[in-house]
Amino acid sequence: MNRDTDGWGLKDLLAAARDGENRAVARLLTLVERGGSPADEIAEATHLLSRDAHIVGITGAPGSGKSTITSAVATHLIEEGHHPAVVAVDPSSPLTGGAILGDRVRMESATASGVFVRSFATRGHSGGLSVAVPGVIRVLDACGFGPIVIETVGVGQVEVDVAAMADTTVVVVTPGWGDAVQANKAGLLEVGDIFVVNKADRLGAEDARRDLELMLDLSEISGLDAGLRPPICKTIATSSEGISQLIVAIHDHNRLLRLGKGLMESRKNRVISEIRARLTHRVAEEIDRALEGERLDSSISPVLAAEQIVGGLFRK
Amino acid sequence: MNRDTDGWGLKDLLAAARDGENRAVARLLTLVERGGSPADEIAEATHLLSRDAHIVGITGAPGSGKSTITSAVATHLIEEGHHPAVVAVDPSSPLTGGAILGDRVRMESATASGVFVRSFATRGHSGGLSVAVPGVIRVLDACGFGPIVIETVGVGQVEVDVAAMADTTVVVVTPGWGDAVQANKAGLLEVGDIFVVNKADRLGAEDARRDLELMLDLSEISGLDAGLRPPICKTIATSSEGISQLIVAIHDHNRLLRLGKGLMESRKNRVISEIRARLTHRVAEEIDRALEGERLDSSISPVLAAEQIVGGLFRK
Repeated sequence: MNRDTDGWGLKDLLAAARDGENRAVARLLTLVERGGSPADEIAEATHLLSRDAHIVGITGAPGSGKSTITSAVATHLIEEGHHPAVVAVDPSSPLTGGAILGDRVRMESATASGVFVRSFATRGHSGGLSVAVPGVIRVLDACGFGPIVIETVGVGQVEVDVAAMADTTVVVVTPGWGDAVQANKAGLLEVGDIFVVNKADRLGAEDARRDLELMLDLSEISGLDAGLRPPICKTIATSSEGISQLIVAIHDHNRLLRLGKGLMESRKNRVISEIRARLTHRVAEEIDRALEGERLDSSISPVLAAEQIVGGLFRK
Repeated sequence: MNRDTDGWGLKDLLAAARDGENRAVARLLTLVERGGSPADEIAEATHLLSRDAHIVGITGAPGSGKSTITSAVATHLIEEGHHPAVVAVDPSSPLTGGAILGDRVRMESATASGVFVRSFATRGHSGGLSVAVPGVIRVLDACGFGPIVIETVGVGQVEVDVAAMADTTVVVVTPGWGDAVQANKAGLLEVGDIFVVNKADRLGAEDARRDLELMLDLSEISGLDAGLRPPICKTIATSSEGISQLIVAIHDHNRLLRLGKGLMESRKNRVISEIRARLTHRVAEEIDRALEGERLDSSISPVLAAEQIVGGLFRK
């Protein structure tokens, strides 16, 4: 019998993890990432143990310096006496590995300061990621970590979804033509609670800030609450410049959320998005199974074929 | 009664479109994009009218010059006596519009040469895009357009999926640190049949080519058929340099596909991906409906909640 997967082993593992043993935390997270019934058991065991950690998402285009910012933020949080954890969602290729971008190297300073860091690969199971990340947050929260910082590497829909699981979402852009525009195109402008113009010593930093302000103006016109206009911070993450202002903005947003109904809503949204991700994942499996069994008749259109399969799949 | 949506109006519209009237084609595409029963009727009416057009996907990171390449390729195809159409999938924001990147401006030269160009916004209905694009291809194919060039702007999963609908997928990268690596990360390396290093007059073009060769070497080791190693073209799209070589590579790939079972497989994959997209879309609606009706009981975990909803949704 696998000691990690039977009830007793899991209970032990969880107790050790909640007692501050990081190896036990890491083991739990591996089980959550793998999915299946051990992951489900861990969800059952942890979902009422929340210590209400503040969940911070950090996202932006590749090369914007998110890893450096995440590392600097986490280190700063340690210095403030917090017990942060970092979840780095890294779409590394099975061919080249994630090390090619040096993200892990950049994260080393944070690890050295005692931040708990965990990387997840998104490759090949992007749907699985939306299922796994809420479980990961739940374990870290139950083990007393907080704030929990989730860094996503890409700007695809999955990354936007994952960023939206956070209570506070930080969107990082860099100076340079079109970066703010790209963030907007990727749907990041809507999920951002705080914006960061990183590499603020570079040419065009002020333009990038102005682009963001303009787009925030436009989105306010289209109905965003003016009282919650996201602040824009300027940072030079490599030298930690501006990081303390960013930390202040993060704490401010957390306070704002806890004053009103914001936090409750953010949690409710996280639960709904987790249920949706699980349903979508399960249904994708059913669809694969249905398509496998199907003999494709080229004389009927894909539209009819899909309708026939749906008819067989669902209860009326 | 809406003349466009009743049987007779549709028949007329299709006849006009197949007779070379571009306004009728445009109207059909609008109906396909809107979805619903007119779109389904159009699918039924066109799915057996295929003239076997060659479907070419062009994808790559924003700013890599895809629009310029697409425009140059389409213009070149006209000069060769083909009757190409361009489908530009443009994730423009409702706030700023797609014009901000100047894609439409860059496409103007193609339009001026008589290429049929149609832009689709992906914003807000990324799932809908995977449903609409096969229908768009079907209409254009039935109306005698070919090759049909699909240009996607982003590098997210949707764009990769749409690119994979093509018979021949062209992946564009630019010189500069990490662009080839980013393409790899986004899963574009696997879907690429032809690679283009655009802006080949810039510093680092040779490095980008070497990066690509290296990654292709690695993927061959991991099982890719060496006989189908994708060629790498160098272009300076703004001055049309290298475009004729790219066209040769596109025609070569088409010939290769038609010699073997490649084209049949590519079509079968397109049908399966369309059915899958339709099912996923339909199921997402069912999930929304199920979640709406659900009272969220915070004492049960999201895992259990999802299982309960699945139990109610599917036939056993």
